[in-house]
Amino acid sequence: MPKRKITVVITARPSYSRVKTVLSAIQNHPDLELQLVVAASALLDRYGSAINYIEKDGFAIAARVFNVLEGENLTAAAKTTGIGILELSTVFDNLKPDIVVTVADRFETMATAIAASYMNIPLAHIQGGEVTGNIDEKVRHAITKLADYHFVASASAQQRVIKLGEDPKMVFNTGCPSIDLAEEVLLSKMLPFNPYEKYGGVGAQPDLEKGYLVVMQHPVTIEYQDSRKHIEVTLEAIYKLNKPTLWFWPNVDAGADGTSTGIRAFREHHELPNVHFFKNMEGVDFLHLLQHSDCLIGNSSVGIRECAYLGVPVVNIGSRQNKRDRGGNSVDVEYSQQQIEEAVLQAIQTGKSGSSSLYGDGKSGHQIAELLRQLPLQFHKTIMY
Amino acid sequence: MPKRKITVVITARPSYSRVKTVLSAIQNHPDLELQLVVAASALLDRYGSAINYIEKDGFAIAARVFNVLEGENLTAAAKTTGIGILELSTVFDNLKPDIVVTVADRFETMATAIAASYMNIPLAHIQGGEVTGNIDEKVRHAITKLADYHFVASASAQQRVIKLGEDPKMVFNTGCPSIDLAEEVLLSKMLPFNPYEKYGGVGAQPDLEKGYLVVMQHPVTIEYQDSRKHIEVTLEAIYKLNKPTLWFWPNVDAGADGTSTGIRAFREHHELPNVHFFKNMEGVDFLHLLQHSDCLIGNSSVGIRECAYLGVPVVNIGSRQNKRDRGGNSVDVEYSQQQIEEAVLQAIQTGKSGSSSLYGDGKSGHQIAELLRQLPLQFHKTIMY
Amino acid sequence: MPKRKITVVITARPSYSRVKTVLSAIQNHPDLELQLVVAASALLDRYGSAINYIEKDGFAIAARVFNVLEGENLTAAAKTTGIGILELSTVFDNLKPDIVVTVADRFETMATAIAASYMNIPLAHIQGGEVTGNIDEKVRHAITKLADYHFVASASAQQRVIKLGEDPKMVFNTGCPSIDLAEEVLLSKMLPFNPYEKYGGVGAQPDLEKGYLVVMQHPVTIEYQDSRKHIEVTLEAIYKLNKPTLWFWPNVDAGADGTSTGIRAFREHHELPNVHFFKNMEGVDFLHLLQHSDCLIGNSSVGIRECAYLGVPVVNIGSRQNKRDRGGNSVDVEYSQQQIEEAVLQAIQTGKSGSSSLYGDGKSGHQIAELLRQLPLQFHKTIMY
Amino acid sequence: MPKRKITVVITARPSYSRVKTVLSAIQNHPDLELQLVVAASALLDRYGSAINYIEKDGFAIAARVFNVLEGENLTAAAKTTGIGILELSTVFDNLKPDIVVTVADRFETMATAIAASYMNIPLAHIQGGEVTGNIDEKVRHAITKLADYHFVASASAQQRVIKLGEDPKMVFNTGCPSIDLAEEVLLSKMLPFNPYEKYGGVGAQPDLEKGYLVVMQHPVTIEYQDSRKHIEVTLEAIYKLNKPTLWFWPNVDAGADGTSTGIRAFREHHELPNVHFFKNMEGVDFLHLLQHSDCLIGNSSVGIRECAYLGVPVVNIGSRQNKRDRGGNSVDVEYSQQQIEEAVLQAIQTGKSGSSSLYGDGKSGHQIAELLRQLPLQFHKTIMY
Repeated sequence: MPKRKITVVITARPSYSRVKTVLSAIQNHPDLELQLVVAASALLDRYGSAINYIEKDGFAIAARVFNVLEGENLTAAAKTTGIGILELSTVFDNLKPDIVVTVADRFETMATAIAASYMNIPLAHIQGGEVTGNIDEKVRHAITKLADYHFVASASAQQRVIKLGEDPKMVFNTGCPSIDLAEEVLLSKMLPFNPYEKYGGVGAQPDLEKGYLVVMQHPVTIEYQDSRKHIEVTLEAIYKLNKPTLWFWPNVDAGADGTSTGIRAFREHHELPNVHFFKNMEGVDFLHLLQHSDCLIGNSSVGIRECAYLGVPVVNIGSRQNKRDRGGNSVDVEYSQQQIEEAVLQAIQTGKSGSSSLYGDGKSGHQIAELLRQLPLQFHKTIMY
Repeated sequence: MPKRKITVVITARPSYSRVKTVLSAIQNHPDLELQLVVAASALLDRYGSAINYIEKDGFAIAARVFNVLEGENLTAAAKTTGIGILELSTVFDNLKPDIVVTVADRFETMATAIAASYMNIPLAHIQGGEVTGNIDEKVRHAITKLADYHFVASASAQQRVIKLGEDPKMVFNTGCPSIDLAEEVLLSKMLPFNPYEKYGGVGAQPDLEKGYLVVMQHPVTIEYQDSRKHIEVTLEAIYKLNKPTLWFWPNVDAGADGTSTGIRAFREHHELPNVHFFKNMEGVDFLHLLQHSDCLIGNSSVGIRECAYLGVPVVNIGSRQNKRDRGGNSVDVEYSQQQIEEAVLQAIQTGKSGSSSLYGDGKSGHQIAELLRQLPLQFHKTIMY
Repeated sequence: MPKRKITVVITARPSYSRVKTVLSAIQNHPDLELQLVVAASALLDRYGSAINYIEKDGFAIAARVFNVLEGENLTAAAKTTGIGILELSTVFDNLKPDIVVTVADRFETMATAIAASYMNIPLAHIQGGEVTGNIDEKVRHAITKLADYHFVASASAQQRVIKLGEDPKMVFNTGCPSIDLAEEVLLSKMLPFNPYEKYGGVGAQPDLEKGYLVVMQHPVTIEYQDSRKHIEVTLEAIYKLNKPTLWFWPNVDAGADGTSTGIRAFREHHELPNVHFFKNMEGVDFLHLLQHSDCLIGNSSVGIRECAYLGVPVVNIGSRQNKRDRGGNSVDVEYSQQQIEEAVLQAIQTGKSGSSSLYGDGKSGHQIAELLRQLPLQFHKTIMY
Repeated sequence: MPKRKITVVITARPSYSRVKTVLSAIQNHPDLELQLVVAASALLDRYGSAINYIEKDGFAIAARVFNVLEGENLTAAAKTTGIGILELSTVFDNLKPDIVVTVADRFETMATAIAASYMNIPLAHIQGGEVTGNIDEKVRHAITKLADYHFVASASAQQRVIKLGEDPKMVFNTGCPSIDLAEEVLLSKMLPFNPYEKYGGVGAQPDLEKGYLVVMQHPVTIEYQDSRKHIEVTLEAIYKLNKPTLWFWPNVDAGADGTSTGIRAFREHHELPNVHFFKNMEGVDFLHLLQHSDCLIGNSSVGIRECAYLGVPVVNIGSRQNKRDRGGNSVDVEYSQQQIEEAVLQAIQTGKSGSSSLYGDGKSGHQIAELLRQLPLQFHKTIMY
């Protein structure tokens, strides 16, 4: 029997980190053939060049597709998606996959979903069913309605996908594969690398021995004109706290310009003797960094998922992660300097909580690969009510 | 207060017929400005040039977008959608609509839905919530998850859209606007035009005085390689019945080649002394033709909707209209020559049934226009569970 | 030393026939690797599915690119070219060719030329420098200005390319590779296949034993609204001549609809007891057909090139081949029924002329492959005056 | 008689500056209607947002087209052009221009040229016929072969376009319209604005009273991997000279990342107490700045054209302006720190030279508008030999 050809499309650095263990499990599976397509911001230098990590990790790349339209506005996001469909159709037409896998809910993942479903290729969706209350949610649930198999990250997500009219037999709570990476990190006793040496970056190089904060705050799409104001509140809070802090630049999204401009402008007008800025970091290294930190501040989903597993305290700002299930490790605050400061100080005092398996038990990658081997190849479905 | 700018994107001839009364109601509304975009097969000669009817009906066209990629296969359908997004984004960026309206569930309507929703323009969807069991269903429900307002055609569709997690306050059972056209036809006592003179076409010109059949059968997307076989069954049945028959060419879809080729080949090898072929017909004229026919045969949604209102008997073939609510006028058969023949003979014997308002009461266009004026402009939503 | 990777992009059936011996020579060359890309109308059924012949001839296909936008108007031609650039860029980015080869002057070949030259990939152009006086000429000479190597088909073309400011050391009169195919045909004593059996087609099946005419007439782009009128003149002449005739449908071009519609309409209103219609034919078979015919009628370049080599009489209609060098075998007429009739009768009387090497000596394919191996890899040029 | 509709497509800030007087002359002409399309980097913030200046100058915008694909590599340049064709075809299809005007030789101007010429719209090209020895030259001469009217900037350019086989009656030496702007500046006796106040920027704010240098150095496309090394040489030279210097960021091109990164890195490791950096400046203000400077350093065409008219000394670095006609005001140097330093010191010593009309006499805009009114509308041409 020929191997099943599984085409996975990676469009951004965080998506790669999230499904890396799935890719490995497919690549190592005797009955599966991995066809990896790298597209969109995953190819671009200023969004962290995920492709470099992918190649370093030893994955062969079946096709590269540049499709990010410049503008960093909403028109550009729509057009990026259109170009993605146009080109991924050709890629799928040439690769002839048995199953296409799309990841999560970034706007451009819709291109993968439409190209595959329109071409009658069975579509698997990793991480549907979550609730966040922004444009991602439109994308996420629309992809659920296009997908044939659903690999969700939590029991509540599973329930939601089924309520959306999907066949329960095709909805699997595999947990989030990103937790697979966190599994090994959980036992780490000390930071296994020097972040300044390994990742460069700019700004001060505070001593990390006595604890440090990590900041990762992305723009929130539907409020993109506010993204500069939002980041300034966080900047003021960190400035005031004046503790060793490692700050990560935002990923590509409508509004990233506001966030980036806000950070640049703040740096020009303020001394930040305790803050270092990184462009990006390999997934596992980032988890190590969190594991040994006092607190993660911002609105990254890593705070809700991986940090729940690791038990790392999180100060979650604003609406971006709204309604995602929370472990006991995180506290939600508004775009308020005072709330952020108080929550961070409280988090440092309380310290780490116990590991939660709310978003996975560390075996997700293998479980998904095995399902990709076994599931019936089908692309014909109907709503279940 | 400036008028609300309502952009409606028409991508196919049947969609135009369906929403014509909505367009008129918007155009005539003192507080609304209609921006009509004509795209895809609605511009193409071999799919009936809807644009000619649109212009003749007096609607001004704000933009024309050619985006149908040739191939009539599934890859082409996906790429047509990608090009549509790319170009409609530019169109919307220049027209700056307050609300965008997309119609039904043809594959390329997804382009309208994605361009608008990604650009944070409130999106209204006409005719969501229906169940048909084919690729259209993936498209239809995915668009529901992208849309902000839902104008559905029946009570069961309304329930389904709400079950999909949409805010019930944004789901309106307006009925289908195509029924508005049927309203005036219902009172017609005789065919008000000579179809051979008005629409040309090819083949025999049977006498229509003593009753006639109408055939309209489209390819079913997910079975597109079977489309030739399917049409041949119907051709054999009609050939055998040998009654006056008016046959309409299929619309553009993956698989149309199979259907068209099947018809052409059959004609070359058989005499059809009672069959005339039309390329297309204006919506109201087509309804008149149905009103005075003995029976509609095929898989057009007109049989399920308008014919229910008119009470015209329908022999519905195959899976294309699966699970759509049925009035008492229609009977479902398989791709079986014998079943088709028997059902047609039975339908002729039984004759017309009473008018059903299952799919609308004839006031849909005005109701939708009024809602477009009143609804709050919003594009931020979350799943309701 | 690794083999040089030579990417050839084929976009239409006639282009494939033209360069088939080049493809073979590359494939068989020990130092070259052929990467064949098949795109545009070469993939489409209604333009003769060149891809089927390509696969049958044993060429492996590196990538397929559907990019023909429907409409058959000038807007569609422009958009087809834009989509072609978008997609071929991705293809080249993944194939990483050492040299890209583009063929002749069809509008969509510009996509190959722009993608390659913009990506700093050395570009070879087959068949530049010719003069025809239509939109093809804009395309052809613009491609010359983008190309780095020029393989032209005649001494006068070579002079013209050099006058256009190209480096004479990069301009090679290799002759036309289509003549390579004609070489073996020249010795044929009788038609080696039954065209009706091998190629089907529709219409009468006249006896070919006592001579026959061949018609191939394409629309002329810049006069595309006239294409129907033009074809009708030819149809009338053939109808009147009433000799055994084999007629070939036109290739894809803005205006093809006019030509096709004209033929279809004429057939519906006239008996043509001596005319058979073919959709297409393999290149060598078509040359055999010409070799044993009395006369070729129309505006195909085959009449100017291959027929000069074969010595077959040609009645060349209208402006499409304007200014191409002529051998002694052809006569030019206007869109005039009378002129066509008289020229055909004269041609039958005169019979075949001697073989001319005006457009090549039958060794072109090998010569081009050898140049592709030896030429310095360069993409940096300047005008030579 | 209806006004002739003239569509001008602006794709970059420098192109806008170059043809601003043409736009005014068309807008003010009683028999012409200006349809201004703004596309590509002219819409983007990080390339100077030409659109803001365009709107401030009072030009109405008929359509905006975002088409810059991200990547800043050669693949992205090709794809940007493809998207441009796709979208401009739709724009032209809707605007229905009588003549389309394209400007100069940036890669994406090819999109305008192809869309217009393929759609049989007469195409005017401003600034063909120049020789620079890089990828621009392929683009420029290919556009010449697509264009119907040629408005060139010098007598030698005129000769070259005619040699390229264009009809001499359609080749007009109108001079460069950018010189029209320089005309009024030539009489200026002092800098009429404070550049720091008006344009912000970053870095030191040296006193400009006693003379200053201006630097504008773009990446050279075919050497794009060297762009960082090239800019570092200039940075070292300026660092060493340590004179009041106003430095302008490069425009968008493959390789801009190398140039920008080089500047940023240099600034982080060196004090530059005499250097101020500007993102961009309105055309006339920039000319004023040059008029009162000691010397322009870099590879901008402004140095060759406008500075010749103004008589401002120029140190022209590297190959970007190779073979363009030179006035007596400029000296060419290699990418050599020592050569740059010496040439700058020499230029300061020598001072301004007399005004040259080599590239125009200041009346170009009106002359071009008048030609656009008078020229026969034609799109059919043939090579003149």
